[in-house]
Amino acid sequence: MTSRVHLNEVAPRDGLQIEPRWLPTADKIALIDALSATGVAAVEATSFTSPKAIPNLADAHEVMAGIQRRAGVRYVALVPNQRGAEGALTGHADEINLVMSASDSHGLANLRMTPWQSLERFTPLVAMIRERAPAVRINASLSTAFGCPFDGAVPESRVLEIIDRLAALDVDGVTLCDTTGMANPRQVGALCEAVIARYPMLTPTLHVHNTRGMGLANVLAGWQAGIHHFDAALGGLGGCPFAPGASGNVCSEDLVHMFEEMGVDTGVDLDALIRVAETLPDLLGHDVPGQVVKAGRGGRRYPLPPGIG
Amino acid sequence: MTSRVHLNEVAPRDGLQIEPRWLPTADKIALIDALSATGVAAVEATSFTSPKAIPNLADAHEVMAGIQRRAGVRYVALVPNQRGAEGALTGHADEINLVMSASDSHGLANLRMTPWQSLERFTPLVAMIRERAPAVRINASLSTAFGCPFDGAVPESRVLEIIDRLAALDVDGVTLCDTTGMANPRQVGALCEAVIARYPMLTPTLHVHNTRGMGLANVLAGWQAGIHHFDAALGGLGGCPFAPGASGNVCSEDLVHMFEEMGVDTGVDLDALIRVAETLPDLLGHDVPGQVVKAGRGGRRYPLPPGIG
Repeated sequence: MTSRVHLNEVAPRDGLQIEPRWLPTADKIALIDALSATGVAAVEATSFTSPKAIPNLADAHEVMAGIQRRAGVRYVALVPNQRGAEGALTGHADEINLVMSASDSHGLANLRMTPWQSLERFTPLVAMIRERAPAVRINASLSTAFGCPFDGAVPESRVLEIIDRLAALDVDGVTLCDTTGMANPRQVGALCEAVIARYPMLTPTLHVHNTRGMGLANVLAGWQAGIHHFDAALGGLGGCPFAPGASGNVCSEDLVHMFEEMGVDTGVDLDALIRVAETLPDLLGHDVPGQVVKAGRGGRRYPLPPGIG
Repeated sequence: MTSRVHLNEVAPRDGLQIEPRWLPTADKIALIDALSATGVAAVEATSFTSPKAIPNLADAHEVMAGIQRRAGVRYVALVPNQRGAEGALTGHADEINLVMSASDSHGLANLRMTPWQSLERFTPLVAMIRERAPAVRINASLSTAFGCPFDGAVPESRVLEIIDRLAALDVDGVTLCDTTGMANPRQVGALCEAVIARYPMLTPTLHVHNTRGMGLANVLAGWQAGIHHFDAALGGLGGCPFAPGASGNVCSEDLVHMFEEMGVDTGVDLDALIRVAETLPDLLGHDVPGQVVKAGRGGRRYPLPPGIG
């Protein structure tokens, strides 16, 4: 297996939304521009959500207007509803990433909608996007697809029922999100295989968090099951509001490093990505979880201790 | 695949040896006793090495004399040479873990011996142990089996040549050590499969570090290849002296958690192991890398935000 892997960089959205302090718009734009120069397939640049719900991303319009569009990079905006979709279209997003939850309580807590209410809203929303901007890609991100921090286990049958509905809406892709790092490799492998088998027309993406240390193990399991598109966040930014001190999204440079070491092409210039990751502690004012930045690439060689060799 | 997994807890040796400060002997003994009550298969309790080289473990004799031996738990001592083996026998270790490097420079830096010099010393050493203590298990740990921080790549052919020699010495098991976290899942799978196929009489163990975030991914790859014995350190203690800030050994409770979530029996009472891990920051005076202690088990459920549900 040497299938090419595609990285969707989500730090500007999933990472920054939970940061303790506001990052100035110019810094966000500079970060997105730096990321898109590394060869990533896509950058989730922002979300068009209520500034009250996510104040850190209240500058979504300014960010979309300020970034430099690089050929070959998809600029994605996360969107929960009609108002958000209109913002994303105005902002000329290449992809609108509709977000919903697989579990009732997470949907209500996060979006004030059950999965079924989200799906109802998506029907006119997808039609509106297709009519106004036929070239815009539409993806649906399914939060809590591997478990919900409030409701507990989410049955695979429920996840597939929801994806059946999304497939019927004719979205282009579906992202299976392990929102709070509850998934294990066996579960990831099983759900990814089921989704790939059931929806040959949908591009599946895997979005995992490293909350319990299984981030790259779950990425490996997804890749073994046939997933080629992965969400990840520079530095391992992001996180779960319920687990202070826990790790966030699986780390982009650690993910790219793993695949490169395995001989799997990612299209990403890892050294360039590491250089961007190295700027994060200064930019954000705190250490970040990424490991490769601290340890160096696997091939790094150290000088021998004195008197040896 | 639901094969039982066996955990060799190495924090008292591989973790403590690199700690910045001395842990009193009584605390070491209490830690080992607490660990052996959790259902782990083995505890690597100490090493019989030069106190000048590893001052933190200078109390190896006192530790082995002070611990409570629990039925069903193997108490292991790491040993680089004849003098160490005599210490381990005096200390009534159930298993002597002979350590050597697969690479010249790491062997010279760590043990003042090339692999071939280590192997020469092991011949009379194994004979001595077998004669004086036939019931003692003999394992050989092969450092830098997946790469050397000084020499770089270590060819699989070289690793197999060394294990051929170890197998000829009639040791009971071999541990493949990713000493500085250089291994990737594809490499781990390939070497583990080769070793399992070539040495049906040797029990193989996998020892990985999480230096570059791939710890549990490499454990998964080893398990998929047929490995059932894993070294791991409580809290993810340990580390690489060359990479300050990088993670250490793969974390025991995170490893047990992953397998339990996958439905694979480990024999370990995970809640009990987590309770021991929770004592580490106070015991050692610093935070530790383990994730499950911070985030809670995957099945943990959180109260709903006010006004929801």
